Amino acid sequence: MTVPVRIAVDAMGGDHGPETVLAGAEISLGRHPDTAFVLYGDEACVREVLKSHPKLAAASRIVHTDVVVGMDDKPSQALRRGRYKSSMWKAIDAVKVHEADVAISAGNTGALMAMANFNLRTMPGISRPAIAAIWPTLRGETVVLDVGASIGATAKSLVEMALMGSAMARVLFDIEKPTVGLLNVGVEEIKGVEEVKEAARILREETVAVNYHGFVEGNDIGAGTVDVVVTEGFSGNIALKTAEGTAKQLASYLRSAMSRTLRARIGYLFARDAFRVLKEKMDPRRANGGVFLGLNGIVIKSHGGTDAEGFAAAVDLAYDMVRHELLARIEQSLTSRRPQEISERRPEAAGAEGQS
Amino acid sequence: MTVPVRIAVDAMGGDHGPETVLAGAEISLGRHPDTAFVLYGDEACVREVLKSHPKLAAASRIVHTDVVVGMDDKPSQALRRGRYKSSMWKAIDAVKVHEADVAISAGNTGALMAMANFNLRTMPGISRPAIAAIWPTLRGETVVLDVGASIGATAKSLVEMALMGSAMARVLFDIEKPTVGLLNVGVEEIKGVEEVKEAARILREETVAVNYHGFVEGNDIGAGTVDVVVTEGFSGNIALKTAEGTAKQLASYLRSAMSRTLRARIGYLFARDAFRVLKEKMDPRRANGGVFLGLNGIVIKSHGGTDAEGFAAAVDLAYDMVRHELLARIEQSLTSRRPQEISERRPEAAGAEGQS
Repeated sequence: MTVPVRIAVDAMGGDHGPETVLAGAEISLGRHPDTAFVLYGDEACVREVLKSHPKLAAASRIVHTDVVVGMDDKPSQALRRGRYKSSMWKAIDAVKVHEADVAISAGNTGALMAMANFNLRTMPGISRPAIAAIWPTLRGETVVLDVGASIGATAKSLVEMALMGSAMARVLFDIEKPTVGLLNVGVEEIKGVEEVKEAARILREETVAVNYHGFVEGNDIGAGTVDVVVTEGFSGNIALKTAEGTAKQLASYLRSAMSRTLRARIGYLFARDAFRVLKEKMDPRRANGGVFLGLNGIVIKSHGGTDAEGFAAAVDLAYDMVRHELLARIEQSLTSRRPQEISERRPEAAGAEGQS
Repeated sequence: MTVPVRIAVDAMGGDHGPETVLAGAEISLGRHPDTAFVLYGDEACVREVLKSHPKLAAASRIVHTDVVVGMDDKPSQALRRGRYKSSMWKAIDAVKVHEADVAISAGNTGALMAMANFNLRTMPGISRPAIAAIWPTLRGETVVLDVGASIGATAKSLVEMALMGSAMARVLFDIEKPTVGLLNVGVEEIKGVEEVKEAARILREETVAVNYHGFVEGNDIGAGTVDVVVTEGFSGNIALKTAEGTAKQLASYLRSAMSRTLRARIGYLFARDAFRVLKEKMDPRRANGGVFLGLNGIVIKSHGGTDAEGFAAAVDLAYDMVRHELLARIEQSLTSRRPQEISERRPEAAGAEGQS
């Protein structure tokens, strides 16, 4: 019998509260019966909701918490008010004290990252955490990081992201040498991307730990040119949100085109199954879940506005990351390059560390 | 009778050379008969192509040039090889010496910007040029800048972009007070966006020249939340390319969904008109043309890989920018805020200038 995956859930996080979170957890439990949940939140409230989720109730224990981190709380506010006692903090802390293998929250990203960083700390060899998203592409899926943990990146932190993203792609896509691209703009010789160029120089030599492909541009993400796309958090977040916006825009164009005329509506009826498949393919809930990388523990962020099906996808992701030993894979990646680091052949990279 | 708009054309620029460029110019001439062209390029070659475009021939004069800037030339290389003598340089120079009102090229962006910047110089009050794109949205169109002229931006240059983008939106959309948003990420309190925050503080006080809306995120671009989106060139370029990639990806999903089953194919036949409308809406050629802003003259960059219809759209854009006096509008915007600038109420913004 396999050891169950222990998932700590911030039951109070998200726009729709415990109803959505617990309904989502139960859907995922149906897919992975070898899961055990610890639910952090207002006990009376959680118990009430669990009444309609008997299967989840049987696989869960509840830990009462008084404080809820608000969706609009600033990270510093959240840390001040919610440290040691909020449902969000407690879920993260369960990972810290090894009572859970992974924590998941649909609460606000800034607060979750601040608490995770404060409590779990970065792994040895990692200067700062990153958030990785799974991006559906024409060829399958691509890991994109950082999508908003921090702004700006040194060459060193871009290289770290390449290592961590590779480990995550190995886990997710089951390929030995996932390809890695550095996000860049197509214009040569413009100043300001020194960090990206320097990261490229380092990655070209990192043949053991990273299968470096080269620079990629924004359109390469959706094309699935590489398995892992690395960029700093500002442009990564903007790329992610822009793609979401474009998908919504085109879905709206399509809807209005298909209801414009009687002929179009008839066509829609005939092709309804095709549209259903298309809708599923474009469903943002399928790719729900950001993975916090670089910390001594795994934390998954679900979209705050998602529904039960979307939260279930994030719980599935949490399950997979534990089952396939993401942390061990990242450590492996870091270890495989350590001799090079120790030899300090790159004083310029070490110098960049000071700025991070 | 109106004075014709004089357009200087780099006939040799683009992936497909003079055939595409001149065919496109003729299409646009059909829509704006009050246009006069000066065509820069290899005279024999241009004359040969003009034989099949008699209407364009009648509205054009040819200036022979020997040198062609390559699509992969680096900006410094292009300047070294092509200054004073290439078709690209000559087209820009025509604007400088007032023989043309606007220059257009489908040649390489970096070289075109380097030459335009070198020859035309930035306008008084503008620290660096920007490239503005017209982005189709759910509500119509939005001006997005900078999409790749330079990397990184000071608060001062972001404010300048807000002023220039507003002037361009006034010209394009015929609205008195276009709304302006600063592109940002949704996470509060993360370090590194000081320039964006400082620009926001300045813009909140710029009530005369700019109708400042606030921060926007990547998904707001496609939603059409504001008329003008301002960001630095790295993230702007990545947003633009990512949106292009996502649109291609979804079009591909749609195509494969509609040919999957017999029922879907029948549905497609019924809804064919609707799909045609959709295809036109998603046609990247419609929004072809980047406008170089902040220089003492207007330069339009067409996509290098576009066809005649796409190049025609860029020529239309060039025509509109001249007809509606873009440069005068930008100067107006800059003048309307000058008293504030002169009073030097913002030493911090002046300090930032040194870094740009």
